[in-house]
Amino acid sequence: MSYIKLPYENLKSFSLAVFKKMGFPEKSAEIITDVLLTSDLYGIESHGMQRMILYYKSIKNGNTNPSAQPEIVFETPISAVIDNHLGAGQTGGFFAMNTAIKKAKENGIGLVSVRNSNHYGIAGYYAKMACKDGLIGFSSTNSPSIMVPTYGKKAMLGSNPIAIAVPAEPYDFLFDASTTVVTMGKIEVYDKNNSPLPFGWALDENGIDTDNAPLVLKNIRAKNCGGILPLGGSTEKYGGHKGYGYGMISEIFTSILSMGLTSNHFGGGKPGTCHFFGAINPNLFGNPVEIKEHFSAFLQELRNSPKADGQTRIYTHGEKEVEAEKRIMKDGIPVNINTFNEMKTICGGYNIDITEFFDDLKV
Amino acid sequence: MSYIKLPYENLKSFSLAVFKKMGFPEKSAEIITDVLLTSDLYGIESHGMQRMILYYKSIKNGNTNPSAQPEIVFETPISAVIDNHLGAGQTGGFFAMNTAIKKAKENGIGLVSVRNSNHYGIAGYYAKMACKDGLIGFSSTNSPSIMVPTYGKKAMLGSNPIAIAVPAEPYDFLFDASTTVVTMGKIEVYDKNNSPLPFGWALDENGIDTDNAPLVLKNIRAKNCGGILPLGGSTEKYGGHKGYGYGMISEIFTSILSMGLTSNHFGGGKPGTCHFFGAINPNLFGNPVEIKEHFSAFLQELRNSPKADGQTRIYTHGEKEVEAEKRIMKDGIPVNINTFNEMKTICGGYNIDITEFFDDLKV
Repeated sequence: MSYIKLPYENLKSFSLAVFKKMGFPEKSAEIITDVLLTSDLYGIESHGMQRMILYYKSIKNGNTNPSAQPEIVFETPISAVIDNHLGAGQTGGFFAMNTAIKKAKENGIGLVSVRNSNHYGIAGYYAKMACKDGLIGFSSTNSPSIMVPTYGKKAMLGSNPIAIAVPAEPYDFLFDASTTVVTMGKIEVYDKNNSPLPFGWALDENGIDTDNAPLVLKNIRAKNCGGILPLGGSTEKYGGHKGYGYGMISEIFTSILSMGLTSNHFGGGKPGTCHFFGAINPNLFGNPVEIKEHFSAFLQELRNSPKADGQTRIYTHGEKEVEAEKRIMKDGIPVNINTFNEMKTICGGYNIDITEFFDDLKV
Repeated sequence: MSYIKLPYENLKSFSLAVFKKMGFPEKSAEIITDVLLTSDLYGIESHGMQRMILYYKSIKNGNTNPSAQPEIVFETPISAVIDNHLGAGQTGGFFAMNTAIKKAKENGIGLVSVRNSNHYGIAGYYAKMACKDGLIGFSSTNSPSIMVPTYGKKAMLGSNPIAIAVPAEPYDFLFDASTTVVTMGKIEVYDKNNSPLPFGWALDENGIDTDNAPLVLKNIRAKNCGGILPLGGSTEKYGGHKGYGYGMISEIFTSILSMGLTSNHFGGGKPGTCHFFGAINPNLFGNPVEIKEHFSAFLQELRNSPKADGQTRIYTHGEKEVEAEKRIMKDGIPVNINTFNEMKTICGGYNIDITEFFDDLKV
């Protein structure tokens, strides 16, 4: 697949214009743009500009309401339930995380569960919001079901990522990972490259390990049996029941506590994604400065610890994103040519002249 | 390995007598006994009576102080940090979880981090304590380092289990799992049976996959390089960085927030285990009865969902423990003959006549 590198600032102007044309208020367009481009800057292509076409379709078919406003339907000094009224996941998510952060600053903790939402981008974006304010941040989302529970053959849970961000030096700790062994995006990459999948990633419609990427994608999209395995694989031997358990933890905080839809009840044209946002003030446990120093020292010990033969580096979570952001901000965001063509399609739908945004690049 | 089945009540009387002889107050002996026997009733032999010999040794060498009392060293209405002063993990854990439960009942949530402790048994025991009171319970503990971080070759994190219990019908949800692909106990079973390990469980001292169980155990005990892999295995291909991340989450809540020792700084004769206990009142999110019904319905959907070819049942987490408890309470607790011999050794050390407790069994 071929890529073109586009400067962050050009993509930002372009994205703002598109999301405004889609019907989002200025502030919402800014939030969605920032979430998508942060993903691209972190090197997570699957959740960046690549997603714009999905949002375009979701608005066209009425699943996302650009003018919807998130509403707090239940609240305590340390918690809230929010109905996002089928607005964009990012606008609901931004509002919900800020609600959690405000509560954590005032009362030590903020836990916010959100229902009736849509795809919200990378979970880590929201966890990091809290971290920038010196808090421990969490976020999770459910998603249309792709994960087959241990010994099952029908996808019943989503990719259900869990993210946590914790203040540290010289970089904040940021863990953000799907609870499946791999994401749907990874299967799509193998499919586009006509590569067989590694065994242990996915099951066919009979619940048997398969290396057939097109079959897996077809089954998931048609909501047939078959799907992607939990972290740990198909049996208890390598801990598949553990990945299934982490997927359940996501579901509990997103769809269960918000009384929203579990992953098996939306997708395939029906909206209803649920999210969770948490912020914990480290002053609940003592001196935040000392806690941060203690954590940073442990992270340094991990990075300094002996490397496996043939390896030169041990990463702590979040380091790769920090380095990618610096590099990509300087070199430009690599945009797949297919994605760029989708961007052109969207522009066609809104009478936007894409060359205006990238005219000096001859794209 | 051969087993004898011993009635729960006999083992309970025996265990109470032994822990009192070890120097624990009556109440502490009851708590430790209940934690150990609950593990045996759940079918988790590794954390049951089998552990008594370790506690015996830990007291003999001064690592566990039977008369130590846990002390709250920092507190807010929704959180606490506890110094367990090297008392038994169970007595500190029981006190800490009850502290969390009290705060959750009064103020919606209780988060308690504990330092300077010892092995506390199964994490799920404490999570379940909250659940019995209608709360969502969490617990985690660090432990002497056995987990090698991704691309490393030295164990830097413990088995670091994470447990969560959530009220549901007909059984509560209870997820309790190490963040390593398998526990040290599993490696020991393969070693005792002279079986090669499945590749993907452990690394040798060079950080290379190995099937050599005795080598892995020797290296861990000697604190050489080598150890057990995180859930997800040795590289990012199957998500090893995710298991490493979950191990980090455990470390953050146990050793970091309590300002205690991280897993790489104790073990091998030095005490200092850290724990975390959390309780969340579901009334922070609305009507607990409705939330419980919503969750129970999803669990039933999971159990009812189509089974993989060759499989007859999909479990939700906690079901196996409920069934094991009923069966084992009726049939007796299977005690490994080696464990029973260790129990005899302990009795020798305290002038206890073991036959008094099991005289009708001709053991």
